[in-house]
Amino acid sequence: MSKKKIIYTRQEMFEFNRAILMKRGVTIEEIATICYQQQSKYNDNVTMGLCIESVEKILSLRDIFHHVQLACEIDRLAEAHAFEGPIQDIILEDLGLFGIDETMGLDVSGLYGTIGQTNFGDIDVNKRGIVKTLNDLGKEDDKCHTFLDDIVGAIAAAASTRVAQVLNEDLAHEVEGIERFSIFDL
Amino acid sequence: MSKKKIIYTRQEMFEFNRAILMKRGVTIEEIATICYQQQSKYNDNVTMGLCIESVEKILSLRDIFHHVQLACEIDRLAEAHAFEGPIQDIILEDLGLFGIDETMGLDVSGLYGTIGQTNFGDIDVNKRGIVKTLNDLGKEDDKCHTFLDDIVGAIAAAASTRVAQVLNEDLAHEVEGIERFSIFDL
Amino acid sequence: MSKKKIIYTRQEMFEFNRAILMKRGVTIEEIATICYQQQSKYNDNVTMGLCIESVEKILSLRDIFHHVQLACEIDRLAEAHAFEGPIQDIILEDLGLFGIDETMGLDVSGLYGTIGQTNFGDIDVNKRGIVKTLNDLGKEDDKCHTFLDDIVGAIAAAASTRVAQVLNEDLAHEVEGIERFSIFDL
Amino acid sequence: MSKKKIIYTRQEMFEFNRAILMKRGVTIEEIATICYQQQSKYNDNVTMGLCIESVEKILSLRDIFHHVQLACEIDRLAEAHAFEGPIQDIILEDLGLFGIDETMGLDVSGLYGTIGQTNFGDIDVNKRGIVKTLNDLGKEDDKCHTFLDDIVGAIAAAASTRVAQVLNEDLAHEVEGIERFSIFDL
Repeated sequence: MSKKKIIYTRQEMFEFNRAILMKRGVTIEEIATICYQQQSKYNDNVTMGLCIESVEKILSLRDIFHHVQLACEIDRLAEAHAFEGPIQDIILEDLGLFGIDETMGLDVSGLYGTIGQTNFGDIDVNKRGIVKTLNDLGKEDDKCHTFLDDIVGAIAAAASTRVAQVLNEDLAHEVEGIERFSIFDL
Repeated sequence: MSKKKIIYTRQEMFEFNRAILMKRGVTIEEIATICYQQQSKYNDNVTMGLCIESVEKILSLRDIFHHVQLACEIDRLAEAHAFEGPIQDIILEDLGLFGIDETMGLDVSGLYGTIGQTNFGDIDVNKRGIVKTLNDLGKEDDKCHTFLDDIVGAIAAAASTRVAQVLNEDLAHEVEGIERFSIFDL
Repeated sequence: MSKKKIIYTRQEMFEFNRAILMKRGVTIEEIATICYQQQSKYNDNVTMGLCIESVEKILSLRDIFHHVQLACEIDRLAEAHAFEGPIQDIILEDLGLFGIDETMGLDVSGLYGTIGQTNFGDIDVNKRGIVKTLNDLGKEDDKCHTFLDDIVGAIAAAASTRVAQVLNEDLAHEVEGIERFSIFDL
Repeated sequence: MSKKKIIYTRQEMFEFNRAILMKRGVTIEEIATICYQQQSKYNDNVTMGLCIESVEKILSLRDIFHHVQLACEIDRLAEAHAFEGPIQDIILEDLGLFGIDETMGLDVSGLYGTIGQTNFGDIDVNKRGIVKTLNDLGKEDDKCHTFLDDIVGAIAAAASTRVAQVLNEDLAHEVEGIERFSIFDL
């Protein structure tokens, strides 16, 4: 087995993710804001605190860690013109028919169930909040947000689904009043 | 091997699909209209003819045939209270956290690539055209459109992606002027 | 909002799932055995206890609850010849090109990440353990396991991925010795 | 709109794909061989010609073009140590819990329906043919096949599904003897 460090704790993964998102121009609050705006349409009990907590938990998970780190690095390498062959300009120009960024986004957004994936579609097609900003900035010369805007939208969509589930879990228990497993203890 | 007929030709599958959609209250034109409205935002060359052709082709494919037939039958059986256990009311009431209809929709909408899946998310969350009508009607007593609205939205999203690809294929050839494989010859 | 009960606690969902699987001929131990056989190839620290715990947690989740209940009911309704049109025999005969059971299985198996989905492919194609038994029994007249064998294989695949992640999480901490979020606290 | 060339014809995409796979050590015949071995278990009418034709068609499709080009380039950049941060060693060492290569593989393998995705799981877990060779070679110092082995397995799985569908389409028509849409005219 390799001596290189390739397995990280949740705390470490969270910190790496916060740092690389920051470097690429995105804060946790901006992601949580999309989540808040999406869920507050359906439920009065949503708070920014719950949205931020949800984004933070998501950013500490291994699969998300890999997605965030790879997405940010592909964008950076495209800005540096490091890719050879046709894929360099396809990524840098964010070709409309290029869909691997969406494939990754669908994977991330499905973390708490399929409804996250339709939420992601809404955020992606209608360019909500920071996703629009990233998309617009990505059109500047040698600036590339092809993967970042989808990953950010997908995290917001997953957080949105987690918020809905936490609030429903609460609802189930008000109705039931019985003992339960701890919430979201997977 | 079974003597029962379980394999159908594309022509047969198309006709079964058109008939069952009709019976459940949906026409090919209504599906094509969502596709037209979505694509005409991005491209001036979209025609209703191309949208209808796209919906018709999709309705003749085996995977779509299975999805359409099963979705319509699940809804009908829920209306008939044929399911036993908790799933009967979960389907009939279209519980917000129920996501298998979206899982099927994501599968159908991804037929021509991932972008169809984000298009589907937009149609599903924002209830475009006939999808809204179906969703509203589904709230009436003992009327169930839990699976139908997603399948219809997904077919529209797939058609939308096919239209975008046909128009881009044309674009590639205007630029290139070289010989090619026949369009969409998979 | 409906007065009908459609939201259940994790404890209730677990019990409904255990009961319907039992009724259709599957025990938690049989599912855990597939998981144990798959993971013990890669890791000496796997125990049946951890595999059973993983299957039980999975059976208490809302998305899985919906999948298990719907899958078992579709099979039962096909045995009862309750479906109208071509889909009745397609399901009852388990047509090789029918893929919606696999679509549902892929959704369930991806619960803890994509690797569960390739594990599911292995279980599905090579018919591991109880999956083979279900598949064989399903060929008898008016017996239908078209959806059940995939759901069972998918739960085993998800459990397998959870086991791998629990053991890796442990590994990360032996190496690190630092404080951490609670394991699998999503 | 950009002046850079980012849209290619099917002929061009096929040639770019054949060239980059060759450069990374994979031939069309090696991919077709996995497909042949998988399908000849189920059907006596499979020929290598049909398998090669299927792989070639798949390699001319836009989504596959993007996947093949990106996968090969990520591997090459990892060999060149071009990634910054933890993702560099995670990719180079092919961490078992890293799943984005499988996410891309699942997307590619689902081209002709879900059954391709379970076929892909079988190829991926059991390392069939050239996939095993690539996986083994990828363990050498500074050699990286983390994405390539999955993309190659996924193309084989999609080809396998296409072969099954072509043969079933033929079957449907022997039974029916009626006119039909052209095969695979999407």
